[in-house]
Amino acid sequence: MEFAGKYDQLKATKVSEGIERRIVKTENLLLANVEFSDGPTSEPDPFHSHYHEQVSYIADGEVFLFVGNEEKVHLKAGDHFAIPSGIPHTIQRLTKFVRIIDCFTPIREDFL
Amino acid sequence: MEFAGKYDQLKATKVSEGIERRIVKTENLLLANVEFSDGPTSEPDPFHSHYHEQVSYIADGEVFLFVGNEEKVHLKAGDHFAIPSGIPHTIQRLTKFVRIIDCFTPIREDFL
Repeated sequence: MEFAGKYDQLKATKVSEGIERRIVKTENLLLANVEFSDGPTSEPDPFHSHYHEQVSYIADGEVFLFVGNEEKVHLKAGDHFAIPSGIPHTIQRLTKFVRIIDCFTPIREDFL
Repeated sequence: MEFAGKYDQLKATKVSEGIERRIVKTENLLLANVEFSDGPTSEPDPFHSHYHEQVSYIADGEVFLFVGNEEKVHLKAGDHFAIPSGIPHTIQRLTKFVRIIDCFTPIREDFL
């Protein structure tokens, strides 16, 4: 069992152009360190949803967060958000670089 | 339902002298933004364990991470760690200020 997940030793997965993901996990919990270097983006990404619950920490940069039909919220480094199971959500990057720490339960098997 | 957890709007709980915690959560997932301003500490905190699984991101500062009988690991801002259910662990702060983003499943009822 590897407890420590040093940044330099984690495998980086290219999600799409300008988006990279590194993960650490336990049995039912997955942390994804997601780096977006494609900002600022001119519009939000398409909404998506998943049955996994999600809590997130904005480590770097600024975004608009969109959740369901709620008014968008301006979040910046140091802020957080929480997405219950099945709720549509998305972000728009407001800065060149954005890093978000996303945690999910259960495991995002699609990230492995 | 409040999706956004802006830092300035979250309630800060004083855990002990020099340690503060802010949380956001969903049904089965809790994120704790823990600020330690008591460093550097001359020795590790006592080991503790919990049945909750934990994944963590070091947002600021540097620590030694101790897990079970493993050799301690030097982690710094940008690094991560993962603690399965029931495994004893602790940290020692190596810098004045340390911020760790701890995520747990299930909810840490003791943090509410």
